[in-house]
Amino acid sequence: MTTKHVGLYPGTFDPITKGHIDIITRGCRVLDKLVIAVAKNDRKGPLFNTQERVDMVLHDTAPLREQGHEIEVLPFDNLLVHFAREVGASVIIRGLRAVSDFEYEFQMTGMNARLDAEIETVFLMASEKQQFISSRFVKEIGYLGGDIASFVSPETKIKLEKKFKLMRDKKI
Amino acid sequence: MTTKHVGLYPGTFDPITKGHIDIITRGCRVLDKLVIAVAKNDRKGPLFNTQERVDMVLHDTAPLREQGHEIEVLPFDNLLVHFAREVGASVIIRGLRAVSDFEYEFQMTGMNARLDAEIETVFLMASEKQQFISSRFVKEIGYLGGDIASFVSPETKIKLEKKFKLMRDKKI
Amino acid sequence: MTTKHVGLYPGTFDPITKGHIDIITRGCRVLDKLVIAVAKNDRKGPLFNTQERVDMVLHDTAPLREQGHEIEVLPFDNLLVHFAREVGASVIIRGLRAVSDFEYEFQMTGMNARLDAEIETVFLMASEKQQFISSRFVKEIGYLGGDIASFVSPETKIKLEKKFKLMRDKKI
Amino acid sequence: MTTKHVGLYPGTFDPITKGHIDIITRGCRVLDKLVIAVAKNDRKGPLFNTQERVDMVLHDTAPLREQGHEIEVLPFDNLLVHFAREVGASVIIRGLRAVSDFEYEFQMTGMNARLDAEIETVFLMASEKQQFISSRFVKEIGYLGGDIASFVSPETKIKLEKKFKLMRDKKI
Amino acid sequence: MTTKHVGLYPGTFDPITKGHIDIITRGCRVLDKLVIAVAKNDRKGPLFNTQERVDMVLHDTAPLREQGHEIEVLPFDNLLVHFAREVGASVIIRGLRAVSDFEYEFQMTGMNARLDAEIETVFLMASEKQQFISSRFVKEIGYLGGDIASFVSPETKIKLEKKFKLMRDKKI
Amino acid sequence: MTTKHVGLYPGTFDPITKGHIDIITRGCRVLDKLVIAVAKNDRKGPLFNTQERVDMVLHDTAPLREQGHEIEVLPFDNLLVHFAREVGASVIIRGLRAVSDFEYEFQMTGMNARLDAEIETVFLMASEKQQFISSRFVKEIGYLGGDIASFVSPETKIKLEKKFKLMRDKKI
Repeated sequence: MTTKHVGLYPGTFDPITKGHIDIITRGCRVLDKLVIAVAKNDRKGPLFNTQERVDMVLHDTAPLREQGHEIEVLPFDNLLVHFAREVGASVIIRGLRAVSDFEYEFQMTGMNARLDAEIETVFLMASEKQQFISSRFVKEIGYLGGDIASFVSPETKIKLEKKFKLMRDKKI
Repeated sequence: MTTKHVGLYPGTFDPITKGHIDIITRGCRVLDKLVIAVAKNDRKGPLFNTQERVDMVLHDTAPLREQGHEIEVLPFDNLLVHFAREVGASVIIRGLRAVSDFEYEFQMTGMNARLDAEIETVFLMASEKQQFISSRFVKEIGYLGGDIASFVSPETKIKLEKKFKLMRDKKI
Repeated sequence: MTTKHVGLYPGTFDPITKGHIDIITRGCRVLDKLVIAVAKNDRKGPLFNTQERVDMVLHDTAPLREQGHEIEVLPFDNLLVHFAREVGASVIIRGLRAVSDFEYEFQMTGMNARLDAEIETVFLMASEKQQFISSRFVKEIGYLGGDIASFVSPETKIKLEKKFKLMRDKKI
Repeated sequence: MTTKHVGLYPGTFDPITKGHIDIITRGCRVLDKLVIAVAKNDRKGPLFNTQERVDMVLHDTAPLREQGHEIEVLPFDNLLVHFAREVGASVIIRGLRAVSDFEYEFQMTGMNARLDAEIETVFLMASEKQQFISSRFVKEIGYLGGDIASFVSPETKIKLEKKFKLMRDKKI
Repeated sequence: MTTKHVGLYPGTFDPITKGHIDIITRGCRVLDKLVIAVAKNDRKGPLFNTQERVDMVLHDTAPLREQGHEIEVLPFDNLLVHFAREVGASVIIRGLRAVSDFEYEFQMTGMNARLDAEIETVFLMASEKQQFISSRFVKEIGYLGGDIASFVSPETKIKLEKKFKLMRDKKI
Repeated sequence: MTTKHVGLYPGTFDPITKGHIDIITRGCRVLDKLVIAVAKNDRKGPLFNTQERVDMVLHDTAPLREQGHEIEVLPFDNLLVHFAREVGASVIIRGLRAVSDFEYEFQMTGMNARLDAEIETVFLMASEKQQFISSRFVKEIGYLGGDIASFVSPETKIKLEKKFKLMRDKKI
């Protein structure tokens, strides 16, 4: 049976890092189509608003789309398994690192399996070079003036630096 | 792009448990074809010989094949990434449990990625009921006369009990 | 020596889940009496107030009390080992899951042992079906309209849904 | 309800360490009676034979029995849950350390729960000073002439040293 | 080559505990000089202000300085690897406990290595008695009236109790 | 105080990998002299004999010695803390990976601390690229004909391949 397998890769992407791109690239090899779901997460107060984060993901995945991979980027704020149904995805993708928060990953996966037993979660392991990147640290380092060029794309780096300049100037 | 994604699920299957069947069932939903690779592992001295283990896997996966899933069962004793190339698999499947031996899993995956960067490893999470099953414990429990009906199929249970009877009689 | 062993099971119970009930049931089999200690936790801003949480715990443990198990439900906001002394408990009960936050569990247990060396902490392992439930996820799923019937009792489900309706209507 | 709670503490005790004594002492505080089950484990080739290990456990638990705690020491080589039934134990005791082999612990507990749902497993946490002791390391250190006085009782130390002298002399 | 090795030990020290002192003592044995870097962390709202924390660290490390160890205590609020360069440190010191938050530790170390490959991170293991101490728990216990004498120095204990009295009186 | 800090880096080195070289390089930056202690381990049946392993370590560390780092390579078969005393080392070095066997590491360190409280253990974190290498996997991959060039030095690769050829020819 060769059916079209659609995967959903959810995240906050605040901002998208080279670690995320690594997982997306792997996801493209395993599945036929990828929907990247950008969580609105307004309560958590992300640094970038939803539209900015969708745009950054679109920008950084352009090379993969040009290679012929089918990738869609959509914001969402409902239940993950409901959103999967809406976009026709039967697989949820999670990046797995040796330093993952396994408690969170296993609980979320276990509860999603109870909510919708037909949706599978697959874990893909980030490459060695991306094992230690996290959006949280990228923001901390960037805010303190460290060089984040090896963690994010050049465009994301520029956007982050503008944001931090604003924060320091206006004390947002 | 809808290409045919073939997954390789390696293991010793000494014997195949309901935990393995759970992962195989999930693999069938994510990929188009599954090759179950039974490791010969002669040095480790498995309880069942290679042919017996291949037969048990074939038996326990018959219902999935009848539902239309493409599943092949093959013995192997060469390097996993080489065997993947031989059978046309681009994905290696591993079962992930909250109690996994993460050290082993991450090392194997990391080294396989270095050996062949085009082969992805995906981890699938076993369902709640199968989180604690291991072939090793099944054999220990069976050998000591415990009831293993909830861990393996009825046919595998019978084969295990015959083996244990032989062991106790002949003191193999 | 057959002395009466009293156990203290502390938590926020915001709300009580089937995972908590699983641990309470096991605690009843190991000890002679259970005191369920509902932490006031006002600073963390629980969804339900203390009285509501005490009532939900009382409701969900009624079947166990009817079977003859001695269970008391009390709010507390002082030091756990002090509260244990107050209620005559010599044992603190903690649920252990494969996905536990071990760092938190071991630190709390280690520091409690230093504060009062006569009070033991025993860990009970939740059953397979309850390994992945957490109050936090139950609230997230319920808020987003997911079906939480398999995680909490019918009464708790109704109370959670009322709360979420209020939150959405009044934007509390 | 004040029923008599009997706990089973299984192990190889090759040899019994201060870490084991720590767990036994805690078990005596939580339960009314303790059965210490010494696994025969002939296949693993323990350093001390079954009778020697039973005797060492009896010796090192004498002070607890003199304080009035009910402790029995018995060898066993059948299935743990079956042995629990035989001796009237409804609780299995396991020592938990921050450095536990969680995979093994959770699998064993999960499978025992499936084999006999009426027998509970409780985990007790060893005290800070005993977090890092293991029989395996005690033997390695002793064999190489290290001082093991802080890990085992004086009598066990003498017995270990005799054994090692024999091993070095006769090259057993 | 006998060059002077300078280590940087960063933390919030809110307040400094016996666990920190344990690591500092070990650091003094491995390196020639230690710079203790007190993070300003204004956003996290520490209980003690930066000057108070620097003073407490100075007080508790006085005995080590009197023994001849070279220890400097400095506040910082820039990027850790930048601060290391400023003070001439080539080594960052982290305390490692069996209950460490490994995810955080490995990510921070991995990202620091990318930011400045010439600065090494060394992990030192706290002694058994200090495995379970954390500043967070010390504050919780102290606030609730528990005895914190075994976790912090007598002077720190007095300062914490004054702080808590103020908090309770003025409801800060 | 600028004393000469000597570190001991113990291992089986069967064979030495790029992961070991990574740790040795880091150790040279933190300490003034390194003694690499090659465990004889005759009982475990290493692939290479002690002399071969000492030679491989000497060969692969030559570039570091040429840079001026003081490195000695010695076989040992006594207790690690005794050997440390013999060679004047006050520090034991261990490589730490996100996938470390923490149980083993913490137990060994904790017990060594009890045996000789003046000898410190420091953990150094391998770089991203070396996180997943282990001698065991290198041997498995090499034996099965996989390319091990990215895990070991060219000379070690040649020696491993000769060994495997012998094994396959003579069925050693």
